[in-house]
Amino acid sequence: MEDIKQYMQSVGQQARAASRIMAQADTAAKNRALEAIAAAILDGGATLIAENAKDVAAAKVGGLDSASVDRLTLTEKTIRGMAEGLRQIAQLADPIGEIGGLSYRASGIQVGKMRVPLGVIGIIYESRPNVTADAAGLCLKSGNAAILRGGSEAIHSNQAIAACVHAGLRAAGLPETAVQVIATTDRAAVGELITMKDYVDVIVPRGGKSLIARISEEARIPVIKHLDGICHVYIDDEADLAKAIRIADNAKTHRYGVCNAMETLLVNAGIAAQVLPPLCKIYLDKNVELRGDEAARAIVPQMKTATEEDWRTEYLAPILAVRVVANLGEAIEHINTYGSQHTDSIVTENYTKAMRFLREVDSSSVMVNASTRFADGFEYGLGAEIGISTDKIHARGPVGLEGLTSQKFIVLGSGQVRA
Amino acid sequence: MEDIKQYMQSVGQQARAASRIMAQADTAAKNRALEAIAAAILDGGATLIAENAKDVAAAKVGGLDSASVDRLTLTEKTIRGMAEGLRQIAQLADPIGEIGGLSYRASGIQVGKMRVPLGVIGIIYESRPNVTADAAGLCLKSGNAAILRGGSEAIHSNQAIAACVHAGLRAAGLPETAVQVIATTDRAAVGELITMKDYVDVIVPRGGKSLIARISEEARIPVIKHLDGICHVYIDDEADLAKAIRIADNAKTHRYGVCNAMETLLVNAGIAAQVLPPLCKIYLDKNVELRGDEAARAIVPQMKTATEEDWRTEYLAPILAVRVVANLGEAIEHINTYGSQHTDSIVTENYTKAMRFLREVDSSSVMVNASTRFADGFEYGLGAEIGISTDKIHARGPVGLEGLTSQKFIVLGSGQVRA
Repeated sequence: MEDIKQYMQSVGQQARAASRIMAQADTAAKNRALEAIAAAILDGGATLIAENAKDVAAAKVGGLDSASVDRLTLTEKTIRGMAEGLRQIAQLADPIGEIGGLSYRASGIQVGKMRVPLGVIGIIYESRPNVTADAAGLCLKSGNAAILRGGSEAIHSNQAIAACVHAGLRAAGLPETAVQVIATTDRAAVGELITMKDYVDVIVPRGGKSLIARISEEARIPVIKHLDGICHVYIDDEADLAKAIRIADNAKTHRYGVCNAMETLLVNAGIAAQVLPPLCKIYLDKNVELRGDEAARAIVPQMKTATEEDWRTEYLAPILAVRVVANLGEAIEHINTYGSQHTDSIVTENYTKAMRFLREVDSSSVMVNASTRFADGFEYGLGAEIGISTDKIHARGPVGLEGLTSQKFIVLGSGQVRA
Repeated sequence: MEDIKQYMQSVGQQARAASRIMAQADTAAKNRALEAIAAAILDGGATLIAENAKDVAAAKVGGLDSASVDRLTLTEKTIRGMAEGLRQIAQLADPIGEIGGLSYRASGIQVGKMRVPLGVIGIIYESRPNVTADAAGLCLKSGNAAILRGGSEAIHSNQAIAACVHAGLRAAGLPETAVQVIATTDRAAVGELITMKDYVDVIVPRGGKSLIARISEEARIPVIKHLDGICHVYIDDEADLAKAIRIADNAKTHRYGVCNAMETLLVNAGIAAQVLPPLCKIYLDKNVELRGDEAARAIVPQMKTATEEDWRTEYLAPILAVRVVANLGEAIEHINTYGSQHTDSIVTENYTKAMRFLREVDSSSVMVNASTRFADGFEYGLGAEIGISTDKIHARGPVGLEGLTSQKFIVLGSGQVRA
């Protein structure tokens, strides 16, 4: 334990020192590093796959479930994907140093804001080695130092990727310590990381709900967290029927295991008899289990009965809760009560209702006539995302480069003093 | 203890419910409430002063120091000041609902951001009754519900101000529970407030360093905090001498007990012999105690010897640490090492050095040729401030209405689904 503490303190100190250099690194140097890391990953593909094979073999012996083994496994395709991701980050505009809002005050000073890095970002994630490259790239481009702690099953893969990251940083004349990948699988390292206030400015946990809940509970550093994605589509009685069916189908069935998939469908009573039969036929044909309230089951008898618990559940599976509501107010009330403030969408042609939904639904993404599946850093044009925040402080929704930065005030004077 | 817990849970539930109504309140209703509160405070001036007199009498019996008694005491002037402050907040633009950055993506959706309230703000402050009115006004205008917990010495004053706030909210048709002032002086109430995750979205502590440190340590809710103000002025060798003297004088001697006062003066070795004698004469004439390093003392022998501890001290008093540095790099290094990331200013005529200082000094306000005393919500045009944040997450520097808000993503579509 003492050793882990000492090791983490030293990692923290080095990260803090590196963060000062990274904050000043110019755009060209950061982009050179990203390109060099991408090249090192492609060149080192065989080594990555060999190191990854050790992890995969151990995971299988250890009885890891097959979905997790899939996420752990590196292939030539995922390796190309990592390199491609880094090159895309190099193409993004550098947010650091951007000055906005400079305006004169009556005192004669000019006041504005400059975008700056947060400093040191600690990222804790499960056994998906590609996150190591993604997270390193985003932190690097946003001028931060990163301390990465991946799942213990991926330790060899992550260390091999770390070697590529370090080679790239060296090639660009930047400090290797700007990205440190924790070299121990000891869980005590996480405990240290999330409490090293002097060395870490923000923690981003990526992974299952229990991991994130535990980290938020124990952290003594701000956490950008993403808990559930209980997303809703509300079909209004003034919805265009074709749009409603297309959106509700896509939001549920495009992918089941993702946080921006719809989990509960709300349908206005005035349109339920028209929209539910054709829509539910699509769901049933795709083997989606339907759980409805009384009114919905009266229209589509194949539905099971939904319980209170269903409104609060993130299925991440081919299961959908369905509820008929009397009006928009009831829909908004349902979403704000049972939702997880992630992503919710209304389908309507009515301007006033659309505006009210946008304003009153308290979620990180609120949509009109679009599938909840669009809630994503790439789709929003952020270029890449470190995660989706369901917090209210600092960043809500998909967090890209800008979410890893802050703004300081700058004042340009010509000798002014306070009267 | 059980009673306090129950009481605070009920306060929290009511605040959460009120926050949903406040988030939808239109600008006119919020402004009507602010004007009505201001009127109630002016009308109730005699009652306020009578209630305040109880607090002041008890404080004197309890042996409260005279500076604290001063801050506790309400006068006709401070009462007019509270009303005036609320009317100024009514004049500010409403940040809520503001939509920015809407742009089309290749998928056809339009993505932008809408500014929204944080929800429920918990504010913990010392025995300054005017903060009750200020904080209520800022939270109300930014569409939040507030739970206010003032110092126990001000309990009668705060309850009297709360009555005015409630009268104003009622007059505007808004829920009284939008601003709740804790009615008990039991310290356990603070412990509850800072851990009621389900009901409180952010905590803003205002007061001494030890209060803030304790709250940040124990809170389980994000804290917008303000610790030290160890502010610097760096006089570069290419400074305009008159500006340098004017700014360094103002930054230190305009007011001593404020967080944006200069605590350490850094002077370039190339200009020290020119600038220190006339500047130090001003300080010594104003009875400012000077504590210098070797090089500074060689020029102004009246200085005492500064120790390492002096570089880390927020005096809040007529004491100034002085250090001679070889160059800009050394000045920035000193500030980033010993400062508190509050406010720092360079005096120089050199463009390149000014730009480097702006970029490299990691503080919430970084200035060129202006007094550190300008670091203030009013001076920056925020209209009013709930505090000055020395944090990096969410808000840095003076926190006004915008700092009490967040942004959610909005997506405007016309039937798009994810391919």
